[in-house]
Amino acid sequence: MTTIQDIADKLGISKSTVSKALNNAPDISKSLQKQILETAVELGYTKLRRYKKPVKKLCVIIQRDNIEYEEPHHFAYDIVMGFRQIAEPAGYEVAVVPVDVNLQREISFDVFMLQHDFSGAFLLGFSLGEPWMKDLQTSRTPAALYDNHIVGNPMTAYVGIDNEEGMYLAISHLKKLGHKKIGYISSALGSYIMQVRHRAFFQAMRSHGLKADSSFAGCSYYLSECMEKHLPRFLDMGMTAIICCQDTFASAAITQCKQLGYRVPDDISIIGFDDIPLSAYTYPPLTTVRQDRIQLGKCGFNALSGLLNGVPLSTVQLHADLIVRQSTGTSRNISGDKSL
Amino acid sequence: MTTIQDIADKLGISKSTVSKALNNAPDISKSLQKQILETAVELGYTKLRRYKKPVKKLCVIIQRDNIEYEEPHHFAYDIVMGFRQIAEPAGYEVAVVPVDVNLQREISFDVFMLQHDFSGAFLLGFSLGEPWMKDLQTSRTPAALYDNHIVGNPMTAYVGIDNEEGMYLAISHLKKLGHKKIGYISSALGSYIMQVRHRAFFQAMRSHGLKADSSFAGCSYYLSECMEKHLPRFLDMGMTAIICCQDTFASAAITQCKQLGYRVPDDISIIGFDDIPLSAYTYPPLTTVRQDRIQLGKCGFNALSGLLNGVPLSTVQLHADLIVRQSTGTSRNISGDKSL
Repeated sequence: MTTIQDIADKLGISKSTVSKALNNAPDISKSLQKQILETAVELGYTKLRRYKKPVKKLCVIIQRDNIEYEEPHHFAYDIVMGFRQIAEPAGYEVAVVPVDVNLQREISFDVFMLQHDFSGAFLLGFSLGEPWMKDLQTSRTPAALYDNHIVGNPMTAYVGIDNEEGMYLAISHLKKLGHKKIGYISSALGSYIMQVRHRAFFQAMRSHGLKADSSFAGCSYYLSECMEKHLPRFLDMGMTAIICCQDTFASAAITQCKQLGYRVPDDISIIGFDDIPLSAYTYPPLTTVRQDRIQLGKCGFNALSGLLNGVPLSTVQLHADLIVRQSTGTSRNISGDKSL
Repeated sequence: MTTIQDIADKLGISKSTVSKALNNAPDISKSLQKQILETAVELGYTKLRRYKKPVKKLCVIIQRDNIEYEEPHHFAYDIVMGFRQIAEPAGYEVAVVPVDVNLQREISFDVFMLQHDFSGAFLLGFSLGEPWMKDLQTSRTPAALYDNHIVGNPMTAYVGIDNEEGMYLAISHLKKLGHKKIGYISSALGSYIMQVRHRAFFQAMRSHGLKADSSFAGCSYYLSECMEKHLPRFLDMGMTAIICCQDTFASAAITQCKQLGYRVPDDISIIGFDDIPLSAYTYPPLTTVRQDRIQLGKCGFNALSGLLNGVPLSTVQLHADLIVRQSTGTSRNISGDKSL
C-alpha cells in the first residue's frame, strides 16, 4: 500500500510537504499541490486507512451546465434526495458538488476525489465528450454514473432506467391505438442516453413489425430545428404519432402541432420521456415514460455502495413505466376509416 | 386485500376448503386444490400477511435439464452458494428447487410459488420457449432471473454479467494481438443469453472497425456441427481467432483445431466464455470471459431483495473480466509477415 513516504521519495520532497498537499494546507503552492496529488493518484495512494473510524464522505457531482437540481421542480432534485435518503442513515456524509467543463480541464477526476477526501461519487449530467468521461475509463475511485456507461472499468457502474423497455412500452401503446407511422424527435446524440434512446426507437419499431428507416428520426442540438424542420416533415410524411426524447421536446411538439393546425391527440399523438413535473400540466397532459427519480437516487447509492464493498457492478437499471395521459389517442387512420 | 373468504365466495365453496388447499392438506383432491390456488393467484391473494412474524422463504429454481448445480465443479454451484451467503444471514430460508418442463406445464409459476409459500425466486437456466418464461411476463411474485430479461414486468429483474463488455474485452484483446479475421461459434440461439452474446459479437467487431458479416458466426444446437462444419469453414476462410459462446465449446474447439493440424495459439487463438473450473485445465489453458459466480449469486439475492422491498429493478449486471491464459497469442499474419 502506498505511503506518504513513497510519494515524497518519488518527488524528492519531504513527507511534511506531501502531508500539507493531501490536507489542503494553505501554505503550499497550488501547482506543487497539484503535482503531489497527481503523483499520489498515480501511485494508487488512498486516504482511507488514515482514519481509525472513518466518516466516509461521498459526493453527488452534477454537471451544472446540463442538469438542474436546486429546486423541487428541477430534474435532478429528487435524484439527489433519493441518494441522501439512504446514504445518510447508512452513516455517510454527502456533499453535492456542481462542476463544469473548466474544472474538469484543471483537475483530473481521481485527483479531485483525493483532494476532497471523497470515497466515492455519483455523477449526473455528463456528456460524452467531457474531460472526466475520459478519466472515468481508467479511474480508480468508485463512481456510479447516472445515464452513462463506461465499458471496461470495474470501478464504475451505470445507473438508469431501462430505456429499451421504456421505448418498447411507448410503441406498444401506440400500436394498440392503431398507429403505424411513428416518428422520433431527439436532441443531438452527444450524450450516451440520447444514443441509447435513439437506438431503442428503431429496435422497438422493428420488434413491433413497424417500418422505420432513418427518415423516421429527426435529431438536432437545437429545439427550434426539431420543431421547425423535423416535426413539419413528419406531419408531411403522414405520421400519426411522435415520440420525443424528453418531455421538454414533447411539450414543445404539442404546442407546435397545434400551431400548425393539428389536434393532439385527434390528429397526432405525442409521447415524451422522463415524466418531469411539467408533464402533468401540458395541454393536453402528456403521456410519457416515467423515470422514478427518488428510486434512481437510491439505486445510485446502492450501486456506489456495492463498488465500495468490492462488488464489481456494471449496470443497475430500474423498470420504465409508461404514464398514459391525454396526449395519445386512437390513430386517425383507424378512427377515420372504419373499414381498416 | 384478497381474503380466504373472497376465494371461497368466487368458487362457491367453504372457507375451510380454501384453507386446506392453501395449506397443502392431504384430504383435498389435487384438481380442486389446483383450481383454488389458481383462483387465489387470479384474485391476487398473498399468504404473507397471515404471519405475525413471517420467516420468509425464498427459492432458487433451477431448470435441471439446462444447468447443473449439485457439485462444486458444476456451473451453478457457486451461484447458489453466493445467494445463500447473504440470504440466510439476512433471515431468509432458502430452498433449492430443481424443475423441468413437465412441472412447468402442470402448474403456473405464481401458483407454484403460492402453493409452497415462497415469497420470491431466483431462477436459473430457463430457455426462451419454456412455459414459465411466458408466465413471467405477467407474474406477480418477485423473481430475479439469471441471464433472462423480461420486458415490461416490474416484478422481475435480470441478473447477469455485462456480456457486451465481455465480448468487447475479448475482441480488444485479439485486436491488440494483431487479429482481424475473427469468427464466433455459438450453440443455438434458443436462450436469451446466446442471443445477447451473438449480437454483442457483431457489435464489438463493428466498434473495433473489424469486418464481420453473417458468415463470421456459426451457430448450431449440436456441438458436433459447430466443430465439424463451422470450425473447418472458419479455418478455410483464413480466420486467425475464434470466440466461442461458452467454455465447453472453446475446449472442444482447441481439440478440434489440433486434430485438423492447427497449433493453438500459434496458428489460431481461441477464447471462451464463463471461466468454468475446467478452463484452467485445457491444453493450452483457456483465455476466457469470466463470470464471477459467487458475486452473481449475491446479486441475485440483492435484486430479489430489492423487488421484495418495492424497488422496481429491471437489470443488475456485473462487470465482465477477461482472464488471459495461453490459448490466445499474436496473429500469425503479424508474426509471419513482419512487413505488415
